[in-house]
Amino acid sequence: MKTWSIPKAPARASREKAWCRDHRGRDYPFDQAMDLARKFHGHASPGLLIGVKMVTHVMARLPEDRLFDALCETRSCLPDAVQTLTLCTVGNGWLKILDLGRFALTLYDKYEGSGVRVFLDPKKLHAWPEISTWFLKLKPKEAQDPVRLLEEIREARESILSFMAVRLNPPYLLKRKKGPIKICPRCGEAYPAGPDGLCKGCLGENPFERL
Amino acid sequence: MKTWSIPKAPARASREKAWCRDHRGRDYPFDQAMDLARKFHGHASPGLLIGVKMVTHVMARLPEDRLFDALCETRSCLPDAVQTLTLCTVGNGWLKILDLGRFALTLYDKYEGSGVRVFLDPKKLHAWPEISTWFLKLKPKEAQDPVRLLEEIREARESILSFMAVRLNPPYLLKRKKGPIKICPRCGEAYPAGPDGLCKGCLGENPFERL
Repeated sequence: MKTWSIPKAPARASREKAWCRDHRGRDYPFDQAMDLARKFHGHASPGLLIGVKMVTHVMARLPEDRLFDALCETRSCLPDAVQTLTLCTVGNGWLKILDLGRFALTLYDKYEGSGVRVFLDPKKLHAWPEISTWFLKLKPKEAQDPVRLLEEIREARESILSFMAVRLNPPYLLKRKKGPIKICPRCGEAYPAGPDGLCKGCLGENPFERL
Repeated sequence: MKTWSIPKAPARASREKAWCRDHRGRDYPFDQAMDLARKFHGHASPGLLIGVKMVTHVMARLPEDRLFDALCETRSCLPDAVQTLTLCTVGNGWLKILDLGRFALTLYDKYEGSGVRVFLDPKKLHAWPEISTWFLKLKPKEAQDPVRLLEEIREARESILSFMAVRLNPPYLLKRKKGPIKICPRCGEAYPAGPDGLCKGCLGENPFERL
């Protein structure tokens, strides 16, 4: 089955101590979540640690028997939280990114669009000065306290998140189709045939020069 | 060190049997590469299996002592090949996607832009009818032979790839900066401050309706 759904039951009993849970139902305490982050994302960033908490709590609010896709509203950190815990990736198309700059993500029924959206809620940050400072950029990075920030994230848990039931708009439910493939007469590479007779790269979008 | 570079030496001796190698220098035979693909991408797609071969051979052509970023010229499969084998991800910003629809990727020096680009070369597919059929969409998916396709990919190895030395254009070398953060007066969420006084979502780009 080339897809995924929400796990039916905890794979391990230590649910209360878990920081996050993956799509197989495996729980990770905070320290292991930091390891997951380092292994995939390169470092245990605040955004990724909060992100895996967000994904976990959205999954817990979804029915077990549906197939879900993911949408992130920022390119920063959150796509990696989704890719760490679920099978939704950028490359398989089950994770989409709409870069609105909001620290929010939605998991939704891939066929009819209903789902749960979560965001890091500024209204819930009053008790967490270091999270506020980091998230709202109240001080330059050099003046922030990364140790205290991690401590606050660990203590705050999901109390800083807000959830809403949503339905994704129809364009996000369509599978993108590339259509027929042609060989570009200029570069000789394959590309999705369009009306212009050349690939987009040869039409001026090449991001590089040859050496 | 919050970054990565090319591994200096093979971590294992079985280099000739390896299908791909990750950024730590760990080799994976074909079957293990299929497992890597299933675990991250959900299935061992032809594009991902060719993609990890592409990443591996580009890494082998790069100097060992530099820091590299990645650029994919398609959203399909290749971003996951990069994310499987390197520490370049969408969420940490070291992997960029410019969706030109070409099955090509570049790893490049993140500071001065020189690097190696690889693409699946239509001119090298004459001996591989099933790869041609899949890549150039010569038959509908139902009429393709997935078993023969995997066999051809495994036999063809890197013979179907072409490489070029490139330098990324300056805009791709800039780190994106979000600037100051504001709270949107309509939705109450944090967003990168712009001239409009509302976040992009409240300006009409919301991908969802609330339920």
